[in-house]
Amino acid sequence: MAEAVRHDKTARQLRLLSDALDSGRLGPVKRLVNTLSPAEIGNLLESLPPAKRTVVWGLVDPEDDGEVLVHVGDEVRESLLAEMDPDEIVAAVEDLDIDDLADLAEDLPDTVIDEVLKSMDRENRERLEQVLSYPEDTAGRLMNPDVVTVRADTTVDVVLRYLRLRGELPEHTDHLYVVSRRHQYLGRIALASLLTCEPTDPINRLIDDEQPAIDVDESDDEVARQFSDHDWLSAPVVDDGNVLLGRITIDDVVDIIRDRAEHQALGAAGLDEDEDLFSPIRRAMRRRLIWLTINLGTAFLAASVVGQFEMTIEKIVALAVLMPIVAGMGGNAGTQVLALMIRGLALGQVGSSNAGVLLWKEVRLALLNGLSLGLLLGVIVWFWFGDPKLSAVIATALTLNLLFAATAGVLVPLTLKRLGFDPALASSIFLTTVTDVLGFFTFLGLATLILVR
Amino acid sequence: MAEAVRHDKTARQLRLLSDALDSGRLGPVKRLVNTLSPAEIGNLLESLPPAKRTVVWGLVDPEDDGEVLVHVGDEVRESLLAEMDPDEIVAAVEDLDIDDLADLAEDLPDTVIDEVLKSMDRENRERLEQVLSYPEDTAGRLMNPDVVTVRADTTVDVVLRYLRLRGELPEHTDHLYVVSRRHQYLGRIALASLLTCEPTDPINRLIDDEQPAIDVDESDDEVARQFSDHDWLSAPVVDDGNVLLGRITIDDVVDIIRDRAEHQALGAAGLDEDEDLFSPIRRAMRRRLIWLTINLGTAFLAASVVGQFEMTIEKIVALAVLMPIVAGMGGNAGTQVLALMIRGLALGQVGSSNAGVLLWKEVRLALLNGLSLGLLLGVIVWFWFGDPKLSAVIATALTLNLLFAATAGVLVPLTLKRLGFDPALASSIFLTTVTDVLGFFTFLGLATLILVR
Repeated sequence: MAEAVRHDKTARQLRLLSDALDSGRLGPVKRLVNTLSPAEIGNLLESLPPAKRTVVWGLVDPEDDGEVLVHVGDEVRESLLAEMDPDEIVAAVEDLDIDDLADLAEDLPDTVIDEVLKSMDRENRERLEQVLSYPEDTAGRLMNPDVVTVRADTTVDVVLRYLRLRGELPEHTDHLYVVSRRHQYLGRIALASLLTCEPTDPINRLIDDEQPAIDVDESDDEVARQFSDHDWLSAPVVDDGNVLLGRITIDDVVDIIRDRAEHQALGAAGLDEDEDLFSPIRRAMRRRLIWLTINLGTAFLAASVVGQFEMTIEKIVALAVLMPIVAGMGGNAGTQVLALMIRGLALGQVGSSNAGVLLWKEVRLALLNGLSLGLLLGVIVWFWFGDPKLSAVIATALTLNLLFAATAGVLVPLTLKRLGFDPALASSIFLTTVTDVLGFFTFLGLATLILVR
Repeated sequence: MAEAVRHDKTARQLRLLSDALDSGRLGPVKRLVNTLSPAEIGNLLESLPPAKRTVVWGLVDPEDDGEVLVHVGDEVRESLLAEMDPDEIVAAVEDLDIDDLADLAEDLPDTVIDEVLKSMDRENRERLEQVLSYPEDTAGRLMNPDVVTVRADTTVDVVLRYLRLRGELPEHTDHLYVVSRRHQYLGRIALASLLTCEPTDPINRLIDDEQPAIDVDESDDEVARQFSDHDWLSAPVVDDGNVLLGRITIDDVVDIIRDRAEHQALGAAGLDEDEDLFSPIRRAMRRRLIWLTINLGTAFLAASVVGQFEMTIEKIVALAVLMPIVAGMGGNAGTQVLALMIRGLALGQVGSSNAGVLLWKEVRLALLNGLSLGLLLGVIVWFWFGDPKLSAVIATALTLNLLFAATAGVLVPLTLKRLGFDPALASSIFLTTVTDVLGFFTFLGLATLILVR
């Protein structure tokens, strides 16, 4: 039910906009679009088929263009950029924050990046170049170098005067960072504590040095974990020598968390999280065919197992009727184990220290479930085909296949992870191959042994 | 690769802890555990089998007990609470923030809640009772009533003096809220702007009234959407009469986003996001059996379709060998469409206004993929069985089943959503039922028409 209520607002906007577009009157469309935040506009653009998307993109206030580009997936971004000439792109992106600009940089033509760099003042140019010098998916790329720093050997009074002179603080500033003469990170001071302390207090009495700084090379996943484990809203980023380079704010971390979840959900079906709902058919076809061809290969593997038992099936056709049940139930049971394992691995909760205990728990569970379901299945098959031996064969085969499924459900993701692959993406294919192949083999093999001679 | 690097720190801690536990020396375990944040301790406890979990829980600094309870899933929380006597529970939770306490309240024995309420001062008691009076999964439950308010008809100077007198601000305070005489929400003032303005400025010149307040009845999903669409760090919560009730901070929103992603990933396999990795075997068994029994039912449906064609299979056993390929490939192709649809629905990007265009795109894509894969499959089958007619039958059946899969992939989640169900949870069962039943029917039906007579 929760899902049904969710995002009703977005869906409503989409419908309104779509109706207005269909009616051809662009005035209302333009007004509607420009009441939205850039993220909402991005969301709407992603939901529109190419032709409508082009029309609406042309109606977005040029001032919002840059922020909208930041908020859409790679594929949609490409389609939007294709509609703009270089001057428009430069105008759209030059006022973005450094971290957003760095995020976009991959997708921008080199000439545009050169133009943007030229249009910046020296300080910002150097900052952008610095951020771009760090690899993607690291803290260095996420950080914004625009931070307010103060020195430890001063008083609150002086800092307050400095802030008043400085005027506006960078967006989402909740702490000032205290640095040494050589710009090394010493700790931070909450804006809240500046407001509640006495002006004559020395700064070093307010310093909070409990929160460790983030290393610039840290992976963005690790950054996300630390933020959510410690309920941080922002964190300083330092280099090897503890020199303060910038800060990461939670709004960017939220984007990582969402991306990661989408990556897992779509990746498990062989899709990219940046996949456009309306991606050009040729591109979509290529991506899906790769995945389906791999699956076709594993399906042949299973079919060749069945092929070994053609003689048996010829004699007892009921086996052909029942064999998909054994294989399919193994796949379903294994998928449950897999879902738990994938989450456990993602949270770092599963590893060599508890894999054995987990496997043992899942095997016991599979045995109990297998016996229960096997009994149920056996009774139904007995009624259907009137053959107690067939019924015993399928009950045994089902139980065995659930045991195989549990074992594969635990071991496949662990093995993939150890080999350096992403278990969330590839586990499911391996698992169903195991449950299909062993399911068919066990059922038809037992049938050959017990029913045929 | 990203996944492989992720959370190495957690996995390392887990291994260290596990080794220390195995060695039986509890001193090092205790020291190790108490260097961790409550969320990290929670994560570790979730990764431990019951016996070790009990030992480690006993070693956690009682001061952290409450925060740890907040950071674990429902099932694990239950197992931890079972180890505590009422006095310990009261001591653990009475100092929690109101919003965290409200979050725990469901799982606490009534006697404990009464004790906690008694131990609170009147203001906090009323606040807790108020928060608990709102339904779960709404903004009212998420909010913390502890906010700092100021009146509009004053100056910065006065506010600064008030803050200094007040001392510490509630955690994660980034704005003060401006309210009317009747406590109605008028707007907010960033701490940053208090620090950069002139002390003589009137307060009403600093008020930012651009951010709309959140309605106390809003669903938590909608709250999460607004936060991420607008990059908010906090937001005021008001009632119908615009009276300020509290504020929601982004750290709680991050928890919602994570929960939602887990809910989708585990829910699709018939599991609960609060499922304990080591849940008691009887409970785990019950939950999984329900799901597997439903799947057994759909498997029988598919088997009964195959049963209609026993005569055909008896004549051409190769059909039994090949039929799982047709059904399975339909399932795989449909799963890809489903993954895109589920994400689109979750983001509000898919609705009645574009469902038609999407269906048309997916059907075209399925036709192209079906013809390509059908050709490949046909050639292989021709080589394998040397029968061009069989090869034509399976190529046609595969193409048709991919078309059915695309149609079901688009329509099943839309229909479930319209009926008020969560499409992320139930779509996959319906989809594979469609692709199995129609896959078998098309393949075996065509074979009967073309190959048998």
